[in-house]
Amino acid sequence: MNLILLLPQDFINPTEVNLTGRRLQHVRSVHRAQVGDTLRVGALNGLLGQGVVTQVNDEHLTMAVTLSTPPPAKLALTLVLALPRPKVLNRVLAAATALGVAHITLLNSFRVEKGYWTNPRLGADNLLLQRLLGLEQAQDTGMPSVDLQRRFKPFVEDELGTRSAGTLRLVAHPEGAGPCPRAVTTPVTLVVGPEGGFIPFEVELLQKVGFAPVSLGPRILRVETAVATLVGRLF
Amino acid sequence: MNLILLLPQDFINPTEVNLTGRRLQHVRSVHRAQVGDTLRVGALNGLLGQGVVTQVNDEHLTMAVTLSTPPPAKLALTLVLALPRPKVLNRVLAAATALGVAHITLLNSFRVEKGYWTNPRLGADNLLLQRLLGLEQAQDTGMPSVDLQRRFKPFVEDELGTRSAGTLRLVAHPEGAGPCPRAVTTPVTLVVGPEGGFIPFEVELLQKVGFAPVSLGPRILRVETAVATLVGRLF
Repeated sequence: MNLILLLPQDFINPTEVNLTGRRLQHVRSVHRAQVGDTLRVGALNGLLGQGVVTQVNDEHLTMAVTLSTPPPAKLALTLVLALPRPKVLNRVLAAATALGVAHITLLNSFRVEKGYWTNPRLGADNLLLQRLLGLEQAQDTGMPSVDLQRRFKPFVEDELGTRSAGTLRLVAHPEGAGPCPRAVTTPVTLVVGPEGGFIPFEVELLQKVGFAPVSLGPRILRVETAVATLVGRLF
Repeated sequence: MNLILLLPQDFINPTEVNLTGRRLQHVRSVHRAQVGDTLRVGALNGLLGQGVVTQVNDEHLTMAVTLSTPPPAKLALTLVLALPRPKVLNRVLAAATALGVAHITLLNSFRVEKGYWTNPRLGADNLLLQRLLGLEQAQDTGMPSVDLQRRFKPFVEDELGTRSAGTLRLVAHPEGAGPCPRAVTTPVTLVVGPEGGFIPFEVELLQKVGFAPVSLGPRILRVETAVATLVGRLF
């Protein structure tokens, strides 16, 4: 937790906050915060700044906060990700958020196991928590949006084309693809497949709505490694 | 396991192998391999190819193997990594191996907790297993070397300069650094600090032996995310 992210409900008034729960536990056990200590804070979707601890006990911690600095810019990147295994989902959501991805779509695909869609980790609480962890890691306040798309064909055919209008459309695909471009200056919509990759029908449908297959070479990377490598290359 | 990596002791003769243990379990439970099935294999530090299952039971699996294709090239990259938390160590070793890093040094630093050095995950068996997992993921056979350096100052002062001669020397450091170069064509030695970063003394010592601080921007990334992002940008 490199940043204590302040939620709207934490504010008692515009310059004073009251923390409970996960963040209180962390600040007490890891930061070992005492009255008078200064901590790095940021308001969700707002400014970064500092908080001075005014009171701390087992149940809550209050801080006087000064918010003054804008957060780092988001990447002009929408990530469309075949829904990963639940264990991987947490890591990739937090990592994509930390990297500054602006929007994340979790998409069905032929090789996504049906059971992944009913896993509790897809609940709104967990999707929020993983993004909070990513923001806290990166010292960012700008929450990326997430949406779930359980039907590949109608989403790609009817929505993705419109949503990605004006962006560079790329699908990471190891086979028969050109190299991934570098240091782009336009917004990007990047589609990343499941373990085992997209099936040919899916790649063809993505190509029909304008997505160019791009490759990082012959190595097959785990999704979280691939996303970070692609971001490093693209931006 | 996108590749079954064959170790020297697996070979009964140059074209026949016998698998037991972890790989047998995986091939039986995940691939559900039957006699006659063809599996993707590769000989450790050797060629890639195919194996046809000739026998399979609870105790072993034999294959007739044909090895013909060279593995993907390694990156011309030596990664010098402040020893991460044990839980992170496994992920970063496997990911760095999958990315194609040629050599990994695990280095002490002021902010590395002493206890990390006595954790069982630093044992030779686990260091080997994590790299095997990375090679199996990436369909590579070339095992990166790993060495452990428990004394920062003598290693940096007396060894790192010589070891990194002729390479582009970079240390990832968020503060006061220039942007990380892109698409380099020379070999690179890349130093990545611990959670919380190197202390100024350490950065200064690295600079003395020729390492230039480079930054990926204001976002603080987890070590495995940072390494993948840097590799994507550099190569």
